[in-house]
Amino acid sequence: MIPQKKDIEAACKQVQAFTHRTPVLQSSLLNELTGCQVFFKCENFQKMGAFKMRGALNAIGNLSEAQRKAGVVTHSSGNFGQAVALASKSLGVTAYIVMPENAPDVKKAAVKSYGGIITECESTLTAREAASEKIQKETGATFLHPSNDTDVILGNATAGVELLEAHPDLNILMSPIGGGGLIAGTALAAHYYGNSCKVIGGEPFEADDAYRSLKSGIIETNKTAHTIADGLRTHLGDKNFPIIQQWVSEIIRVEEEEIVEAMKLIWERMKIVIEPSSAVPFAALLRNKDQFKGQKVGIILSGGNIDVKKLPF
Amino acid sequence: MIPQKKDIEAACKQVQAFTHRTPVLQSSLLNELTGCQVFFKCENFQKMGAFKMRGALNAIGNLSEAQRKAGVVTHSSGNFGQAVALASKSLGVTAYIVMPENAPDVKKAAVKSYGGIITECESTLTAREAASEKIQKETGATFLHPSNDTDVILGNATAGVELLEAHPDLNILMSPIGGGGLIAGTALAAHYYGNSCKVIGGEPFEADDAYRSLKSGIIETNKTAHTIADGLRTHLGDKNFPIIQQWVSEIIRVEEEEIVEAMKLIWERMKIVIEPSSAVPFAALLRNKDQFKGQKVGIILSGGNIDVKKLPF
Repeated sequence: MIPQKKDIEAACKQVQAFTHRTPVLQSSLLNELTGCQVFFKCENFQKMGAFKMRGALNAIGNLSEAQRKAGVVTHSSGNFGQAVALASKSLGVTAYIVMPENAPDVKKAAVKSYGGIITECESTLTAREAASEKIQKETGATFLHPSNDTDVILGNATAGVELLEAHPDLNILMSPIGGGGLIAGTALAAHYYGNSCKVIGGEPFEADDAYRSLKSGIIETNKTAHTIADGLRTHLGDKNFPIIQQWVSEIIRVEEEEIVEAMKLIWERMKIVIEPSSAVPFAALLRNKDQFKGQKVGIILSGGNIDVKKLPF
Repeated sequence: MIPQKKDIEAACKQVQAFTHRTPVLQSSLLNELTGCQVFFKCENFQKMGAFKMRGALNAIGNLSEAQRKAGVVTHSSGNFGQAVALASKSLGVTAYIVMPENAPDVKKAAVKSYGGIITECESTLTAREAASEKIQKETGATFLHPSNDTDVILGNATAGVELLEAHPDLNILMSPIGGGGLIAGTALAAHYYGNSCKVIGGEPFEADDAYRSLKSGIIETNKTAHTIADGLRTHLGDKNFPIIQQWVSEIIRVEEEEIVEAMKLIWERMKIVIEPSSAVPFAALLRNKDQFKGQKVGIILSGGNIDVKKLPF
């Protein structure tokens, strides 16, 4: 059930044909501040502005010819809808994106600009699922899940692979935890490409389902998820949870103010635009500085899609 | 009087020992929007966050042993003070920085963190000059001008040299125009390292002294300079004006709203933090799109030091 190294190699081939090999940035100031060496993998510079492009490309690329012809469908108010639209365009596949009618115009415009066909619905999960199912029935399109899909996880793994190829001696690899698709991919990358490289996740206290899931051994959910890290409000799934259980050694939870402060530090010191979810692992590192002292730490900055008119600082 | 290629080569050696070779970024989205290929040289990622580090390093590096021992002095409320402080630290020289007492705390803190010795004074030019002269008399320190100094200009030229080394076939090189030190350096780089590479400056209508100077043939000043591009409020000097006259083919003026819009586009599309002055050449390109159609255009993004709590959008 657990993917093999050859599966990741195939994903790299598939994904890298249509993505940027994003840069790995360092900041001597942030190294001084943290007491460790931090290597930031800048997926905010990825096509459509987030790592999600990688998973979408791998999932669509692995469809059969017949499936490709019928198209793909997903429901998303965030980055995955854009990723599926752009990845589909890259591969010549029709993409149906179900979006809540109250989604920001800028996100709808982005999906449209990538050629995605938008169906609007009410903003409840039930309405979104119903709309997706209707499209599946009518068109035969394949449904793509943003995080609980092995091909998506393998696609996401390619970010960690590239980071480890550039810096093979990382002691620790970190990513945020939302639906679990990125951290599971990162864990696979560390396992197959790292040199005793530990994987640590960052998660908001306000949506700490993954932290609780690791403790209890079953997939927990969030009753509420009032976190600024809007990409991290979802819970794990049966495809990524076993990988996370096996290879993620720790999840560090952070307060909302810590997320904003970490985000501000990265903006001010590194001069790059990241979205709040991206700042969570660095916030976790800052919170538990002592634990990272002297280590080489890789952090996946997951994305940079944020409305610059509505900043939390 | 005009510097030679060997002077730039010497500056490169001096400057590159203590600076980042900053990346050159492209955006397919912005290329589509502009109809040309734009290559952004990211001096916002430079040490202390701006190209000014280059000029300061070259000027201090070229001092005699005796001069170095006595230290350097400048007055600045902006990036040049920080640049002189950090460059001095890199070269083991004492830096005296005169700053207006109402300068933002964050800028004073930055100068201090680089080891600069701050003297506060009233915020008038007279008070700043008086304080600098007093320090020169008392310590024997050498005064450094932020833009009208041949070594500073040569240091600044190294950014354009690196951009042309990476992309030798640029048709046009652009930079903002404030005191004239960056555009003069950029013009030298284009002349000695370019292949028929034209140099075009961007300047706010609100402080269009350089535009008027090129027309009249004498150095003009601004009666007011109410521009958001706070690095561009100063006027040219006798060291950089002859270079600008000889090798800058055009200055395009832009409105304040155009600067903000260009800045927002770069933040949102390229996911990088730049200060308003940096956005001026790209605003100029957007204003006169037709003129740039199909060309390869290099733009020096001069810096990224901005208070992210006080954005114009």
